[in-house]
Amino acid sequence: MQTMSLVVIGSVAYDAIETPHGKRERTLGGACTYIALSSSYFTKTGIVGVVGEDFAAQDRDWLAEKGVDLLGLEQVPGKTFFWSGLYPANMNDRKTLQTDLNVFADFQPKLPPSYLGQPYLFLGNIQPQLQRDVQRQMKQVRFVGGDTMNYWIRDYRADLLSTIRHWDFLLINDEEARMLSGEHNLRRAAQKILDMGPNTLVIKRGEYGAMLFRRDSLFMVPGYLLEDVFDPTGAGDCFAGGFVGYLAERGFDLRNGHFDVHELHRAVIYGSVMGSFCCEQFGVERFRTLTREEIDQRFAEFRRFTAF
Amino acid sequence: MQTMSLVVIGSVAYDAIETPHGKRERTLGGACTYIALSSSYFTKTGIVGVVGEDFAAQDRDWLAEKGVDLLGLEQVPGKTFFWSGLYPANMNDRKTLQTDLNVFADFQPKLPPSYLGQPYLFLGNIQPQLQRDVQRQMKQVRFVGGDTMNYWIRDYRADLLSTIRHWDFLLINDEEARMLSGEHNLRRAAQKILDMGPNTLVIKRGEYGAMLFRRDSLFMVPGYLLEDVFDPTGAGDCFAGGFVGYLAERGFDLRNGHFDVHELHRAVIYGSVMGSFCCEQFGVERFRTLTREEIDQRFAEFRRFTAF
Repeated sequence: MQTMSLVVIGSVAYDAIETPHGKRERTLGGACTYIALSSSYFTKTGIVGVVGEDFAAQDRDWLAEKGVDLLGLEQVPGKTFFWSGLYPANMNDRKTLQTDLNVFADFQPKLPPSYLGQPYLFLGNIQPQLQRDVQRQMKQVRFVGGDTMNYWIRDYRADLLSTIRHWDFLLINDEEARMLSGEHNLRRAAQKILDMGPNTLVIKRGEYGAMLFRRDSLFMVPGYLLEDVFDPTGAGDCFAGGFVGYLAERGFDLRNGHFDVHELHRAVIYGSVMGSFCCEQFGVERFRTLTREEIDQRFAEFRRFTAF
Repeated sequence: MQTMSLVVIGSVAYDAIETPHGKRERTLGGACTYIALSSSYFTKTGIVGVVGEDFAAQDRDWLAEKGVDLLGLEQVPGKTFFWSGLYPANMNDRKTLQTDLNVFADFQPKLPPSYLGQPYLFLGNIQPQLQRDVQRQMKQVRFVGGDTMNYWIRDYRADLLSTIRHWDFLLINDEEARMLSGEHNLRRAAQKILDMGPNTLVIKRGEYGAMLFRRDSLFMVPGYLLEDVFDPTGAGDCFAGGFVGYLAERGFDLRNGHFDVHELHRAVIYGSVMGSFCCEQFGVERFRTLTREEIDQRFAEFRRFTAF
């Protein structure tokens, strides 16, 4: 496999999920897991996370088989982060039933020396201060960005703003964009967020697709139309993995002064492709069989159904 | 101007509208009005509708100036159809405050002789039986379709089904597609609706864009991202006008055996363009200044922001 290029920080968890199509009592989850599973189809990915003593050897083995570098996955006394959620018939408005942070409550990302010189960094949704600490350690980063959530936007605003000021891209959903900017209209919201630092903003809209904003350009893509949405858990994280993974694969470099904005657009398409595959089975199950060939076929399908 | 080519049937009305941006007590409205105003940028359009004695000469004159053929607009004793609605801050879930059908309650479409040989026909949302009667009279139609609404889907289902069986296209919104098909998932819904007769189904999704389904192809486009949505009234009808108007302009002909499916895709883009302009001012006001050049510029903008 390729030498490592992308570092991903975030949660590794076990999930209990119920959707109209069935349920799973305990399945591998967590944002970092989904992002890395997705990005590893494009580039060698190393993760930074923490799990408890209950983390199964077979899950660790499977991630390693998928090519994910686990040097940064710390195992400590206690239990792994556990989340459980329920999706109603229309699959929107999922309800969180339980969130046990467990060992994730005291997560202090520790970067192995081999991670420090990597060029791509995705900072998953954790405390903004910790995201900043990680970024500060990675001095050769060429393209860095991440995710956040309503909790940090509301209660850690100043901290979050001083973190994203140094990001190339921010990747959030429409409600988070509205909350962060105070604007309902997404075009206005995007302008305000670009003023906060990131030169690239990706807004995910679930089944309705995604948008990419830069000062001088806009890109939009509709969502992939699945016949069955089995389980949307992790779809947004898989989008992130496809987006940043594709750019890492291409050696995308904003800082060299001449880059092709269409590469960013294609990264949004690969993000959409990965998010759509994620929904086809429960939890991370789709990644047990998914091939790069299928991914590229669906990319081509996006070209066909958006051509005019 | 060109010789007439498109006939549009439907309501001509006065509307009272209130949005977060302001209000209008009485402004020209009705589906047929919006459709014809929109399509008249592409092809000579004749309307079939009914108004009361209160219909203002200046409104008639303005429609005529815009190139709309009014031979089929009957004026009868009584009052013109009146609708009033209120939009909340987020612009979704508009509330109908009042619907006075007035002379529209007894609408019996009467086609002037000059309309009977026209090649394009859009059957706006009226009683399915009346839509069928009109279609039967127009024996040289090359491309015919229309719109409907929840009321006919629910209470006149058999009648509606025997009407749309003979249509080339059906143009409805996502909720109507779900109601008509009994399927929540739009891909499945579309397959069921294509089984009902139309070879082309366009599903409008408001701010989220539109989709076009045929047996062997799918096309999707995101919505145009406006900075201010002033008033969404009529946007779906303007979409319809742009869609069918563009195809009429191009001489699109499904029946000659070889046609370019990309023309249908471009028609969806023109529909989206016209819907987006409609939202920029109250009621039909945007059409007082809108030029074909602006329309083609926005079409080009759609190309740019969907290219990858």
